[in-house]
Amino acid sequence: MSRLLLNCDIGESFGNWTMGLDAEVMPFIDCANIACGFHAGDPSIMRKTVSLALGHGVQIGAHPAYQDLVGFGRRSMAYTAQELQDLLHYQIGALDGICRAQGGRVSYVKPHGAMYNDMMANPAQLRAVIQAVAAYDRSLPLMLMATRDNRAAQQLGDEYGVTLWFEAFADRAYDSAGRLVSRQLPGAVHHDPEKIIEQALIIARGDNLTASDGSALHLQANTLCVHGDNASSVAAVQRIREALNQQSAS
Amino acid sequence: MSRLLLNCDIGESFGNWTMGLDAEVMPFIDCANIACGFHAGDPSIMRKTVSLALGHGVQIGAHPAYQDLVGFGRRSMAYTAQELQDLLHYQIGALDGICRAQGGRVSYVKPHGAMYNDMMANPAQLRAVIQAVAAYDRSLPLMLMATRDNRAAQQLGDEYGVTLWFEAFADRAYDSAGRLVSRQLPGAVHHDPEKIIEQALIIARGDNLTASDGSALHLQANTLCVHGDNASSVAAVQRIREALNQQSAS
Amino acid sequence: MSRLLLNCDIGESFGNWTMGLDAEVMPFIDCANIACGFHAGDPSIMRKTVSLALGHGVQIGAHPAYQDLVGFGRRSMAYTAQELQDLLHYQIGALDGICRAQGGRVSYVKPHGAMYNDMMANPAQLRAVIQAVAAYDRSLPLMLMATRDNRAAQQLGDEYGVTLWFEAFADRAYDSAGRLVSRQLPGAVHHDPEKIIEQALIIARGDNLTASDGSALHLQANTLCVHGDNASSVAAVQRIREALNQQSAS
Amino acid sequence: MSRLLLNCDIGESFGNWTMGLDAEVMPFIDCANIACGFHAGDPSIMRKTVSLALGHGVQIGAHPAYQDLVGFGRRSMAYTAQELQDLLHYQIGALDGICRAQGGRVSYVKPHGAMYNDMMANPAQLRAVIQAVAAYDRSLPLMLMATRDNRAAQQLGDEYGVTLWFEAFADRAYDSAGRLVSRQLPGAVHHDPEKIIEQALIIARGDNLTASDGSALHLQANTLCVHGDNASSVAAVQRIREALNQQSAS
Repeated sequence: MSRLLLNCDIGESFGNWTMGLDAEVMPFIDCANIACGFHAGDPSIMRKTVSLALGHGVQIGAHPAYQDLVGFGRRSMAYTAQELQDLLHYQIGALDGICRAQGGRVSYVKPHGAMYNDMMANPAQLRAVIQAVAAYDRSLPLMLMATRDNRAAQQLGDEYGVTLWFEAFADRAYDSAGRLVSRQLPGAVHHDPEKIIEQALIIARGDNLTASDGSALHLQANTLCVHGDNASSVAAVQRIREALNQQSAS
Repeated sequence: MSRLLLNCDIGESFGNWTMGLDAEVMPFIDCANIACGFHAGDPSIMRKTVSLALGHGVQIGAHPAYQDLVGFGRRSMAYTAQELQDLLHYQIGALDGICRAQGGRVSYVKPHGAMYNDMMANPAQLRAVIQAVAAYDRSLPLMLMATRDNRAAQQLGDEYGVTLWFEAFADRAYDSAGRLVSRQLPGAVHHDPEKIIEQALIIARGDNLTASDGSALHLQANTLCVHGDNASSVAAVQRIREALNQQSAS
Repeated sequence: MSRLLLNCDIGESFGNWTMGLDAEVMPFIDCANIACGFHAGDPSIMRKTVSLALGHGVQIGAHPAYQDLVGFGRRSMAYTAQELQDLLHYQIGALDGICRAQGGRVSYVKPHGAMYNDMMANPAQLRAVIQAVAAYDRSLPLMLMATRDNRAAQQLGDEYGVTLWFEAFADRAYDSAGRLVSRQLPGAVHHDPEKIIEQALIIARGDNLTASDGSALHLQANTLCVHGDNASSVAAVQRIREALNQQSAS
Repeated sequence: MSRLLLNCDIGESFGNWTMGLDAEVMPFIDCANIACGFHAGDPSIMRKTVSLALGHGVQIGAHPAYQDLVGFGRRSMAYTAQELQDLLHYQIGALDGICRAQGGRVSYVKPHGAMYNDMMANPAQLRAVIQAVAAYDRSLPLMLMATRDNRAAQQLGDEYGVTLWFEAFADRAYDSAGRLVSRQLPGAVHHDPEKIIEQALIIARGDNLTASDGSALHLQANTLCVHGDNASSVAAVQRIREALNQQSAS
């Protein structure tokens, strides 16, 4: 079993506004998805966040988004494939600039919000994202969502020579296609820490989850998305970290 | 006599708005100061501008600015030294990201507008800019204004190991301290193409200019700032280019 | 025959960037759709534009848009009905504030770009826009596109007590449903001034147009959308103005 | 003794970011200074904030700022007098638009942050602000800082027919000129609730404060600036409210 990386959205404060317990969650994660100024983050917050990640030996991922600060990058916007690639190069480069000044480097890419969702829903958009990463630096992995069948995405990654890191969620219910159950539906989000840790361990072991229709679901995942929004989510991350450490030690 | 580089502000369109005759002036310049999105430019315009520069073998300079799009980066704003460095790293990195995707690289830095003026007026700000360039990539030259006595700036550059490229103007009158005569005063801007070309050649030869008070003024300059705003300024650039070529051939 | 108003998008410069021949077209129009800062325009440009309109006795319309400056408000964005109304109130109010300071008032509303298109394509969005206008000031007419059958829109307007001004285009071909032929298709845009003026007069008289499939199309229109982008479009507006004046005098 | 109004900065959240305990402090204040989108606030937050204020019968003040979202409007920027007035009209109008849609109105103006400080430091800027208010609606009072001698400001207000509301602070030390002691100096900010309430009551009674140099200081104030940043500042506001109520009842 290869090690399951914990990734977390980080650096989502902006100007005078604070969001998330970045310093508290950083010790427990492997990969920090750092906002690049378009949905959150500004140059000074990015510098502080990069410094925090480097101090904890956490990998720095670019977390680029649509240009929609007031909507937190969560609204779909009609970008062309070319514009999307421009957005990605600008934001990855900007974060990389902040990193270089501290002796660090961006080491992977994970699109944010609507850019992430649109990439999962639309193969042309996924192709544009993969092309953008390949053009910037073919050695950077792209993080995207694990589903029941990752082959179509994997084929696109292979076509451009880009490594894909598939991510799963410990606190969300899945349907039988390996998609997240909509938050509108009951049972979509797990709140019980025991259930969350159990799902994390199942994913880490590569065992089957139980989908919302009761069927068995196997997710091939390289990384688990965790959250540092508040004290209880940080506590859950700490427990997942400890459970994974224990599992890999045993 | 070392070659006098022609530098020009480029890529100052934004979204649906066009500014400057970038394609027309590009064939005649050595260095393109490309806007990085804070006073002008957006990711797509930056991509097109970088492509144009690469196509003409023109060096690409980051042209970072204060975050004031509506003011075109021309209003002084009270940034701390740290914030200023963050702004620079973000913008240099962003342009570098756009360049890397096309196989190019940012090869020097020239601050824009109020950031440039404040850097020339305030040694603490000049130090912050030089520090920022050194932290990003010590091999990138910083472009700043030649005055009668460049030694204080040169000393700061040497302290951080950053090369300075001093720039002069062919279309502006200088006072005896080697500062530009204010645009408020008569005779501040040369409009006669012959006078502009003559001043360019004097600077290129390293001869003395005549300052506004009649005194002799020697400017040690590595580069000349030219303009692609309109057809007549592009025509002037072409004539300067030809005159410099002829001079260096003779 | 009631008078056909000429409306034109105006005030679409931004900061240091200029767009459109506002001063040249203003003498020939009845209604200026003035950008409110979200897709174009800034407070100072809005002030100058309002002053120009007041000087020519031209009605001032708010021309609100999605918050997408770099995309010029032309990209569809997923706003809720409530958010859309907030956007409208903010922008109508902002322009009204600029007007009040000069003794003027906003006297109608015309959504811009993607907000306009989405409103025409989606009845829920049209309802939200009408509700927003009604809540702000029931006496302000809303400008929207005339189609073969304006009744559904009219019914919504009546429900909220908002007057609708239907607009038609003299320089665009229509399909048999009274929708504009897509710009992707040949013949979508008329370039011949004679054809444009002829179509303007047909609409003004309330006669039938010939749709793209050859069928007769009757458009009930209160206003004609004209353009001040460049010298030739301004010349066309002047000729339309003169032709309409002559027609109404005869 | 006329009633001392309690005013508080409100509506300083933005998009997905929350700031301040608006709902908690609203019951205890008279005047809500509502952010207008340039340093904080967005159209939807403004709508919710206006609704909250109207629900509590609290007066709505426009709290306009320089256009510097990332700097929270706290950095001085070099606006011309005309640009400053344009900024004010845009923002007052925008908030008024949000109010009108709910049957409310902006009823006074208080500039924010650097715009406020620059207005107090620079008579030309104060004149521009007063002119802007007069041009928008002469019946709106302008809130500004009470000092030892309000006469120069009062004279400007009288010249344009604009009512001035002078504000004082219960939690800040004053120097002998009636200016706030710099936050850099010890004792500048009162943290002891008893001291804060005592100072509020002194100001309400029109008695003398003791300035930082021990001299007596009389501040003629119409309103007291209070804060809803956190639970303890809200508790202080509640106690000030109760103390003022008791005082005016006795």
